[in-house]
Amino acid sequence: MEIDLSKPILDLNERLATENRSVLDAHGVFVLDLMASPGAGKTSTILATIDALRDRYSIAVIEGDIASKVDAEKVKAHGIPAVQINTGGACHLESDMIKRAIAALPLDELDLIIIENVGNLVCPTDFYLGENAKVMILSVPEGHDKPYKYPGIFQISEAVILNKVDTMSVFDFNEEEFTAEVNTLNPKAPIFRIAATKGEGVAEWAEWLAARIDAAKASLSEKGAEAGS
Amino acid sequence: MEIDLSKPILDLNERLATENRSVLDAHGVFVLDLMASPGAGKTSTILATIDALRDRYSIAVIEGDIASKVDAEKVKAHGIPAVQINTGGACHLESDMIKRAIAALPLDELDLIIIENVGNLVCPTDFYLGENAKVMILSVPEGHDKPYKYPGIFQISEAVILNKVDTMSVFDFNEEEFTAEVNTLNPKAPIFRIAATKGEGVAEWAEWLAARIDAAKASLSEKGAEAGS
Repeated sequence: MEIDLSKPILDLNERLATENRSVLDAHGVFVLDLMASPGAGKTSTILATIDALRDRYSIAVIEGDIASKVDAEKVKAHGIPAVQINTGGACHLESDMIKRAIAALPLDELDLIIIENVGNLVCPTDFYLGENAKVMILSVPEGHDKPYKYPGIFQISEAVILNKVDTMSVFDFNEEEFTAEVNTLNPKAPIFRIAATKGEGVAEWAEWLAARIDAAKASLSEKGAEAGS
Repeated sequence: MEIDLSKPILDLNERLATENRSVLDAHGVFVLDLMASPGAGKTSTILATIDALRDRYSIAVIEGDIASKVDAEKVKAHGIPAVQINTGGACHLESDMIKRAIAALPLDELDLIIIENVGNLVCPTDFYLGENAKVMILSVPEGHDKPYKYPGIFQISEAVILNKVDTMSVFDFNEEEFTAEVNTLNPKAPIFRIAATKGEGVAEWAEWLAARIDAAKASLSEKGAEAGS
């Protein structure tokens, strides 16, 4: 017996994600979907990215977790609007959850929404949420062999952040092997080496993100000009 | 629209798991389902556990991964039979996969099968595979706040292994808060502090597991004696 239950769920998710994209485009908001294992440093990376870009962009955060609101509280303590989604058990965010979250945010005032997906290297890869880009974080303590074991997330990410590089000497992390395997799976994706809690390397990653935001805004303006002409 | 697709999948899984349990009981094999995030040290903990118990028990390993067979190769290099399951995308093992894996193992010769579930703190919690016990590993670099965010896995585990305790000084890990929260979620579960790659603390964990194996064997012998009397 074989039943593919994933198709109807994914089809509905895709439709709502496209609706999210239209709403976000209408307001000129760029959305980043940030994915990683539990404890890889998603929240620290978000806080460091906010520090790097808050003078240039108006930013909000959507926090996804099975339970708790500790991450949203950390972001709010940083003076940034945050919506917490508790999935209640689901291992990833879906576009209906994002639809409700963006309805709670002041889209007219925003340039960038960062979505912190549920800590997981598997489930989030299949779900388009209406974002402009998916980016993943791998942290050094997780080990250099993760691209072999979880190829999907490395393939779907536009960029790969390698976090906690300050702990490289503590762990047996073969960076050469890691880089080679990421390049094989996803030749176009840049790898940004950072230590989020110390701010190391964050500037390069933030510049890449800023360039993506500016390019998306320029593309929307062109379309707007064409539509208006 | 609301469709609960999880129930038929879980029902089928439960039925096959019970079948697995009967087969394993008939051969007197104890099964441990080991769960953790990617990179928490599941394979290292398995290798250290094998070293601690291989003189007393005959052991095999079932390795679950999205892709690759690197872990099964590590275990085989240790002189232990290993079956690799590649889920091809699924974020957890299911009992039909275990059914096929145990069919490939010499059950008559075994006392203990350790299942390394897919790296994930969410999906594996819902799936009974026919195991005697589920145990989870959290590693220090993942952070002490994980019980708040992933309560389900802490609640379903009979024991919690805290791995990489040798890196405690490198990370801002509040062990007191972690222990208190684990005790709140699951008052009966012991917490074993280990550094798997260095062998630290492994003896206490291995003794707990040995006691569980011996108790299960004794319980099966009693049942057998009753059935025969």
